[in-house]
Amino acid sequence: MKARVLIRPKQGVLDPQGQAVERALPALGFGGASHVRIGRLVELEVDDPSQVPAMCEKLLANPLVEEYEVEVLGDGPVNGSPA
Amino acid sequence: MKARVLIRPKQGVLDPQGQAVERALPALGFGGASHVRIGRLVELEVDDPSQVPAMCEKLLANPLVEEYEVEVLGDGPVNGSPA
Repeated sequence: MKARVLIRPKQGVLDPQGQAVERALPALGFGGASHVRIGRLVELEVDDPSQVPAMCEKLLANPLVEEYEVEVLGDGPVNGSPA
Repeated sequence: MKARVLIRPKQGVLDPQGQAVERALPALGFGGASHVRIGRLVELEVDDPSQVPAMCEKLLANPLVEEYEVEVLGDGPVNGSPA
């Protein structure tokens, strides 16, 4: 079964990549963009999607500074962010 | 309006991060995971969501080796991958 994990910096955690993008966009002619946050996307095939949150806690995300959201593709979200 | 961009390595492009995760998972007790691909997640507020694909082409993604998917949150997908 295909699963997707969206990993983002927690609110209040500094996101220097997002800040860099936010500053670069106007220089490229794109106005009106704000609140840019950059995270990671993990897509994988798993036999048991219920294992995915544990994979996030142990390997995929850093729960101290990142929140994650697991989606089982085709079956809708199964698990919200732990944050 | 809030927009989300999912950026992934194109099919056929080597994904060393994904390979590393795929090899690490069994060692942590997670069997049955395969086809792990790691990409980036960009979330932002934009006045005009139709600008987002151009932002991807110029700044957010590398169209040579990455494909992207734009979602306008709450309004469903507006633009598929260009790949």
